[in-house]
Amino acid sequence: MSDSRYDVVGIGSAIVDVLSRTDESWLADKGMVKGTMALIDSNRAKLLYTAMGVTTNMSGGSVANSMAGIASLGGKPAFIGKVGADQLGESFSHDIRAVGVDFYAGVKNSTKLPTAQCLILVTPDAQRTMNTFLGACTELGPADIDEEIIAAADVTYIEGYQWDTPQAKAAIRKACVAAKGAGRKVALSLSDPFVVDRHRDELLQLIFDYVDLLFGNEEEVFRLYRTNDFDTAVKKLRQSNTLACMTLGARGALVVDMMSTATVPAAPVSKVIDTTGAGDLFAAGFLYGYTNGRDLVRSAKIGGLAAAEIIGHMGARPEVSLRELLVKGGL
Amino acid sequence: MSDSRYDVVGIGSAIVDVLSRTDESWLADKGMVKGTMALIDSNRAKLLYTAMGVTTNMSGGSVANSMAGIASLGGKPAFIGKVGADQLGESFSHDIRAVGVDFYAGVKNSTKLPTAQCLILVTPDAQRTMNTFLGACTELGPADIDEEIIAAADVTYIEGYQWDTPQAKAAIRKACVAAKGAGRKVALSLSDPFVVDRHRDELLQLIFDYVDLLFGNEEEVFRLYRTNDFDTAVKKLRQSNTLACMTLGARGALVVDMMSTATVPAAPVSKVIDTTGAGDLFAAGFLYGYTNGRDLVRSAKIGGLAAAEIIGHMGARPEVSLRELLVKGGL
Repeated sequence: MSDSRYDVVGIGSAIVDVLSRTDESWLADKGMVKGTMALIDSNRAKLLYTAMGVTTNMSGGSVANSMAGIASLGGKPAFIGKVGADQLGESFSHDIRAVGVDFYAGVKNSTKLPTAQCLILVTPDAQRTMNTFLGACTELGPADIDEEIIAAADVTYIEGYQWDTPQAKAAIRKACVAAKGAGRKVALSLSDPFVVDRHRDELLQLIFDYVDLLFGNEEEVFRLYRTNDFDTAVKKLRQSNTLACMTLGARGALVVDMMSTATVPAAPVSKVIDTTGAGDLFAAGFLYGYTNGRDLVRSAKIGGLAAAEIIGHMGARPEVSLRELLVKGGL
Repeated sequence: MSDSRYDVVGIGSAIVDVLSRTDESWLADKGMVKGTMALIDSNRAKLLYTAMGVTTNMSGGSVANSMAGIASLGGKPAFIGKVGADQLGESFSHDIRAVGVDFYAGVKNSTKLPTAQCLILVTPDAQRTMNTFLGACTELGPADIDEEIIAAADVTYIEGYQWDTPQAKAAIRKACVAAKGAGRKVALSLSDPFVVDRHRDELLQLIFDYVDLLFGNEEEVFRLYRTNDFDTAVKKLRQSNTLACMTLGARGALVVDMMSTATVPAAPVSKVIDTTGAGDLFAAGFLYGYTNGRDLVRSAKIGGLAAAEIIGHMGARPEVSLRELLVKGGL
């Protein structure tokens, strides 16, 4: 364990996931692109929710899931995000604190926006398709970033999703400056292929300016470097001056730094039920390992272990103690 | 299929379940009796919730679960129950309608009580221990019972749990009278051993006056007849002038009528994750079969099939189409 107060402080959207099973034709009928995240307004949220089947409601949010994962692994995470003054906000706050994450909800909301919801459709292939109504998350701004908390964490972890809300970008930049000023690291998740398309130039600049660790799946990395060639993508990652983890689904993950490339196979899963949170939990495992003295390959293996747990059930928060799996796996 | 508008109309508590995993020592520390339901006030609800780990929120309520099960089997259920004007109430209403249950929320709430919640602790043995804050459910009363809906259903299904709220008893009696007046059947779930202890005399009278089908597990039936002897319990059931289903956990279920007794083995389950809703889904399957022309043994087998699905995952609402399982199982 490091001596820092926190291993990782995450800044992200505080979202309650509303999960339901459906089939591919339903997605097509509603104009959804499978495996991606779409931002929706409250009218579309109502329309989609009405059309959805029976739901399971669980706390979510990409970076928030990662922080919950780090806590479950026995690490020291904190999370900064905004909830509304409603039952869903209470539920989110409870769940993230219950697992041991220090949750900083920032300054009080100035408006009465509801807590964010993500309507998630899970298809028979266990793939998730997400529709996010950001609500109170749109209020995250620089005032919510306490530089002392940032300075107290080995790593500040941010998500590409934040580029969709104007004030959040300023908050993230403030956090990056604070982290660097304190001699800390910055980690970024690319979040979603469409997010990368929408904000490619800004994300590339952010990576150049601040990012030490980069997380993304194959599709996201391809879009970032506008290539469909695996070797080209890896070469670009190597040149990016970051340590990069490219997740490859069932094929595992690739860790790329300036000197070398290591492939880590996926951990075995008896049955893939719902891939919601797989990337988030990979990042959780890697960041836990990275901030707790494990080498890169072992860190990636912890990421694979955490991802394997999360895809074995509905929802993006661990159902069992990842710490126990870690110990059992000798990692 | 019968010609009636509804196979079954259920009257019960409209509850959102808040599920979390824990161990036996946690239950003991909080003074809970494993496997039972305790009624709690809002202060204890807050205290327990704060102490609980990460939660999954899903619609619940015993009879409501059964109605959702009948819908999933392809039957025609309706449900009468009360929710609050809040996010949990919206969630409950959505989920029960989404699966195809006609949900009658009754007359408007006169107060601002919140939607009921059941804090459910699941231990490593997959047993569930429940703590119910009834909230808006305490307002269910005779005014909420539409006699036309009762008369339109082959069976009116009620839960022993309702005996804990004074107005609800009057509502149930009104429904029983309406059902009998329309030449329909009345089914009762004993709900919980402590419920039976608290209201034994009234429940025995209700069974004598109105009940045609009785559902209960071994412990509940033992308490109803103040015996610990299996054969005595069966003899009492036979004398009760009802058709009775006694669920026996992993040993399956016993169907007892005036003439005969049939044992139906439990359906195979690869891994028992959470027994929440097992009894509710057994009743769903049996009632579906009973109102759709299946004989008693086959009806009990459908009950076993539905129960097996529900204990394979967290939560008390089916995750897959029970209709498909029914067809696949040739039932």
